[in-house]
Amino acid sequence: MERNYNFCAGPSTLPEAVLRQAQAELLNWHGLGASVMEISHRSKDFEAIVTQCEQKMRSLLNIPENYKVIFLQGGAYAQFSMIPLNLLGNNTRIDMIETGVWSSKAIGAMKRYADINIAASTKDTKFTTLPEANALNFSEDSAFVHYCDNETINGVEFNYIVDNTPSPVVADMSSNILSREFDVSKFGVIYAGAQKNIGPSGVTLVIVRDDLLGKADSKMSDVFNYELQSKNLSMINTPPTFSLYMIDLVLTWLQNQGGVAAIEQVNNAKATMLYDLIDKSEFYNNPVAVNARSRMNVPFTIVNSELDPIFLAKAKEQGLINLEGHRSVGGMRASIYNALPLEGVKALCEFMSDFEKQYG
Amino acid sequence: MERNYNFCAGPSTLPEAVLRQAQAELLNWHGLGASVMEISHRSKDFEAIVTQCEQKMRSLLNIPENYKVIFLQGGAYAQFSMIPLNLLGNNTRIDMIETGVWSSKAIGAMKRYADINIAASTKDTKFTTLPEANALNFSEDSAFVHYCDNETINGVEFNYIVDNTPSPVVADMSSNILSREFDVSKFGVIYAGAQKNIGPSGVTLVIVRDDLLGKADSKMSDVFNYELQSKNLSMINTPPTFSLYMIDLVLTWLQNQGGVAAIEQVNNAKATMLYDLIDKSEFYNNPVAVNARSRMNVPFTIVNSELDPIFLAKAKEQGLINLEGHRSVGGMRASIYNALPLEGVKALCEFMSDFEKQYG
Repeated sequence: MERNYNFCAGPSTLPEAVLRQAQAELLNWHGLGASVMEISHRSKDFEAIVTQCEQKMRSLLNIPENYKVIFLQGGAYAQFSMIPLNLLGNNTRIDMIETGVWSSKAIGAMKRYADINIAASTKDTKFTTLPEANALNFSEDSAFVHYCDNETINGVEFNYIVDNTPSPVVADMSSNILSREFDVSKFGVIYAGAQKNIGPSGVTLVIVRDDLLGKADSKMSDVFNYELQSKNLSMINTPPTFSLYMIDLVLTWLQNQGGVAAIEQVNNAKATMLYDLIDKSEFYNNPVAVNARSRMNVPFTIVNSELDPIFLAKAKEQGLINLEGHRSVGGMRASIYNALPLEGVKALCEFMSDFEKQYG
Repeated sequence: MERNYNFCAGPSTLPEAVLRQAQAELLNWHGLGASVMEISHRSKDFEAIVTQCEQKMRSLLNIPENYKVIFLQGGAYAQFSMIPLNLLGNNTRIDMIETGVWSSKAIGAMKRYADINIAASTKDTKFTTLPEANALNFSEDSAFVHYCDNETINGVEFNYIVDNTPSPVVADMSSNILSREFDVSKFGVIYAGAQKNIGPSGVTLVIVRDDLLGKADSKMSDVFNYELQSKNLSMINTPPTFSLYMIDLVLTWLQNQGGVAAIEQVNNAKATMLYDLIDKSEFYNNPVAVNARSRMNVPFTIVNSELDPIFLAKAKEQGLINLEGHRSVGGMRASIYNALPLEGVKALCEFMSDFEKQYG
């Protein structure tokens, strides 16, 4: 088989139809006699791509008019600094919820800029649970509340929106944006690295409510100033043009799948199938509380961890690749983003059943 | 013809052989059953790409061991802020040379961080000359000296290295790096957006002498901290993986051309051919002093500017595209980077001669 089922956590699998289109027009895009990556970002042809990326994202996520949609560089990691530099103003406090590796990294970065109030932490459960929605201890004077909606490494996903907060909510949705419907208007800022559900790596999506603009630190580069970038079609500097082109194709693909509501049904079916297999088995295990489980990233272990390398090698033979767990936790992880088809999860479940019969 | 000769100033033309290889393996790279843009940046396969990019860059530019080579995001524009944030320490002064639009933008950005001493400016000649090497007024207490080695918009290129300065020299080589041999050891920092001679957009090359590290501003994101990125193979955050893959292919292509010394000969031949035609003509004009002319970006005008749109339309019919001058200056501009072949400049010169015969 030319293409494997690729469970990589990111950069992750892309829709095959998108890759085939990119391949077909790689040397001659739109009859220009040049690749899309060889034309000026200031050309009408390329500006249309960025405009379409914004419009399709607005349509798919039902983003209200009073939100800006921008595409930046530097990954979600850079946003850990850019968010305080854009939003703090004279405020000196941030409320943060800790539910896994990525929200912990955000805390480590943001504490350079402000006093951090930990509104809740699930560290005591080794990040296998969610905090109770009514047990979040917000301060009254914070600039914003930060949380990570889906923890890629820990396999934990919020099953509620953090709401009724004294200050605007900022959410890292890198690994679950576009995977389910949600109400954008509940948020001040939503940000996401592209390399899971949006496209290839190199682009960071930022959705920001316009009343939060205007407080950017004067020492920050214009390139990371939300207000300036939103006024300049995200092109104060030369953007990663090929990545944006790919995003445009991925968003079109998602529209053709029926949009976010339709892909959410598929995502639920995929996750249910995989968790059911794990839960019915004495051989596989997932450590996360049922109500905290991610529909995107499913970490699992085999009771006898000596079987891990055999499992991974045999899975690869079957065309099921990149199932290694994160280097910090070991075991296995199946990332089942939008572009990983239902058939891929079926194939994985069949393989896991067979493997259990042989080695269990 | 499927491919035109593309004179775009950036993102600019890429070697056709590179695009053909990328096209062939776009859905299945190295037999992985996945695209290179669908695999983890932490995988051995991908880390090898970044390591090769560094090694090839070191080899092509003969970079000494005491320099770090890193690949960042945000473009040269972001470096206008990252350079002071990485290098200033307790210093409060920067020496800057102004020779065109890009060095002026750098001054505008860097003055947020320090007092700027303009060591020289050619603004009075409308950026058509170079400052005399012995007439640069450096301060004794600056953190560094900044200049732009090739001004993409103005078509001005230094014909000497700024040397014998009291503080380390920082050079923006976005539009002429890898186009000619030069002595890296004369510089403290060299930086370049990739989208001219290195690869597609989305990556910024930074070459930094290691004794300049260790002074980074604590409020800066780790993602832009030269020292931290150099210790982490430029992968503190997820890099733009496809762009780095393309850079690896472009650098291999350049090695196959015979390296920088060989491409320099071709570049000189291309520039000489085009400037000779302009200088021998009463019909075309280039405003830049002969000793200040860029070998990469050749802006030119037609005496009767009403002919500009006719020139551009007829050139396009002949497969000579993206010859429009920068929106700030008008006229025409031929960017003739490494990947624009000699045959392309020959075709342009033939077209220009014919056009002059018809309309001159």
